[in-house]
Amino acid sequence: MTKIYKLNPERHDEKNALDALTKMIEPDLKLINHIILKETENRVSLIPKLANHIISSGGKRLRPMLTIAAAKLCKYSGERHIKLAACVEFIHTATLLHDDVVDSSILRRGVKTANTVWGNESSVLVGDYLFSRAFQLMVSDGSLEVLKLLSDTSAIIAQGEVHQLLTKNDLDTSEDTYLDVIGAKTAALFSAACKVSGIVADRKIADQESLESYGKNLGMAFQLIDDALDYSATSITLGKSRGDDFKEGKITIPVILAYRRGNSEERSFWKKTLVSCNQDENDFEHAISLMTKHNSLRDTINRAKHYGDKAKDALAIFPNDKTKETLINLVDYCIKRDN
Amino acid sequence: MTKIYKLNPERHDEKNALDALTKMIEPDLKLINHIILKETENRVSLIPKLANHIISSGGKRLRPMLTIAAAKLCKYSGERHIKLAACVEFIHTATLLHDDVVDSSILRRGVKTANTVWGNESSVLVGDYLFSRAFQLMVSDGSLEVLKLLSDTSAIIAQGEVHQLLTKNDLDTSEDTYLDVIGAKTAALFSAACKVSGIVADRKIADQESLESYGKNLGMAFQLIDDALDYSATSITLGKSRGDDFKEGKITIPVILAYRRGNSEERSFWKKTLVSCNQDENDFEHAISLMTKHNSLRDTINRAKHYGDKAKDALAIFPNDKTKETLINLVDYCIKRDN
Repeated sequence: MTKIYKLNPERHDEKNALDALTKMIEPDLKLINHIILKETENRVSLIPKLANHIISSGGKRLRPMLTIAAAKLCKYSGERHIKLAACVEFIHTATLLHDDVVDSSILRRGVKTANTVWGNESSVLVGDYLFSRAFQLMVSDGSLEVLKLLSDTSAIIAQGEVHQLLTKNDLDTSEDTYLDVIGAKTAALFSAACKVSGIVADRKIADQESLESYGKNLGMAFQLIDDALDYSATSITLGKSRGDDFKEGKITIPVILAYRRGNSEERSFWKKTLVSCNQDENDFEHAISLMTKHNSLRDTINRAKHYGDKAKDALAIFPNDKTKETLINLVDYCIKRDN
Repeated sequence: MTKIYKLNPERHDEKNALDALTKMIEPDLKLINHIILKETENRVSLIPKLANHIISSGGKRLRPMLTIAAAKLCKYSGERHIKLAACVEFIHTATLLHDDVVDSSILRRGVKTANTVWGNESSVLVGDYLFSRAFQLMVSDGSLEVLKLLSDTSAIIAQGEVHQLLTKNDLDTSEDTYLDVIGAKTAALFSAACKVSGIVADRKIADQESLESYGKNLGMAFQLIDDALDYSATSITLGKSRGDDFKEGKITIPVILAYRRGNSEERSFWKKTLVSCNQDENDFEHAISLMTKHNSLRDTINRAKHYGDKAKDALAIFPNDKTKETLINLVDYCIKRDN
């Protein structure tokens, strides 16, 4: 039997970090949910139906939670961060809708994807709608600085998505190229979600940049763990369908490391399965065994820890308080999570 | 042989209206082309390749031309209209890319669509990229009023596209519902393209509203003629593939009129071909013959003329000059065009 890598030996403690964050910002989270429901209302009933299917389908709401927590860290006392957190969630949701179309995904977090239920056409167009709504909300906030941050971020995300499409089935993709891709498609929005609160709180540039850095590095760690989870043992608790990346021929860090460290026979296996997309029943388990042999899951997690450490250090200039502690614990949660 | 309706007995004169407009604003059009090329440059080379494929594939650039002409009508002497015209074209192009995915279109203006050449995935993601770039350009312009206009317009377009998707294969769609759909998916951007120049020229609200009304009514006329052209005789000069709407089961005004005016046998034909999508070789010609019998193409053009007349009257408050004359002639061009 294939030896499988267990990502998370102590997940119950870490789960508490997410719970602690959720509890700390609960009133604001309720306000965000209210805005999301209100802003997706539409006489074209498919729009709220589809939008709320994906928004309510068990995602962690990590990005808007970061916006709220960052505002709290900055001792911001206004209300602008609520609306902007909803913008961040809308941009994220629009991206997910289009991602699921691009990847032909059937399940997301164990629930049928919107494209499975309503078709690709609806997902593309409702994604466009949510993206437009995000910009309308930002415009109603009225800050050109925020608009610049989030429109720049949106362009970076889209560029990262196109770039990732080009690396699909391409085993020559280098680790650094892949890190560029996830820096754009994932870390940029984590980063903006944090920085935006520094802007509305009118914090000095150094503080804004620290929030930006915290979010960026947390996002990198988050995505690397996502990539490792796709090949992990804990398939039962996994929200996303385990093995999806493999099936789609996505070239992620666990693959890049196993391929580069492999012998010529192993490299032929990776080419057959991920480039030629010729996959047999046991190939996925064999892929995991090669990753175990070459420690590529362990080292993907080590890469994630590196970014996690940077995220924690980025917060060092903020005074110690409960919020900072929660944000630091959140880094460990993101690394040790199993879904 | 089926009697076919010739849309355009005098197209050469009307073609001159478009040529006259193009000539009048040629220097500005060159600047727009320059911005488009510059703003689509990207190290991810698929982005400029795909973007320029669709942007350069023989479209009329009618929307950015409207922005330029409206600026001229308002005697605007600045340069902001150039960048905003490029934004309008980017929003339009992003919509086209997603439309072609949604409609599974193979050709656009006789050229292979981007989704045919590079796949649906690329078209969805590069569409997202262009849409984000449009917002970045608007943010760099720096006017919240313009940002509000164009983000509102983007949301209206997306809502109209979703609404149209829901009317597909639905013969119960009423004429007014369909007019709502095209008001959102087509006329809203024509309208914003004109109004934006009234805003940058700092014209009084009445002037801005007149430009808005001109664009909206021109857009309605333009789309109605587009719908009629799909069933017209002049297939050779047609940019879009004649018969596409029929093949896709799109419910447009020519169909709505022919269906409602038809007897029960004819209604069964429409149900078979457009609802059940059961189409035989001669069904398209038969559809045209029913439209001819019930004058539904003629009356679609009459509807277009109604909006055209309103567009012309909307300009009445502007002093008579060469620009106004050209914009009025453009209405006739849009109605009498054959591609």
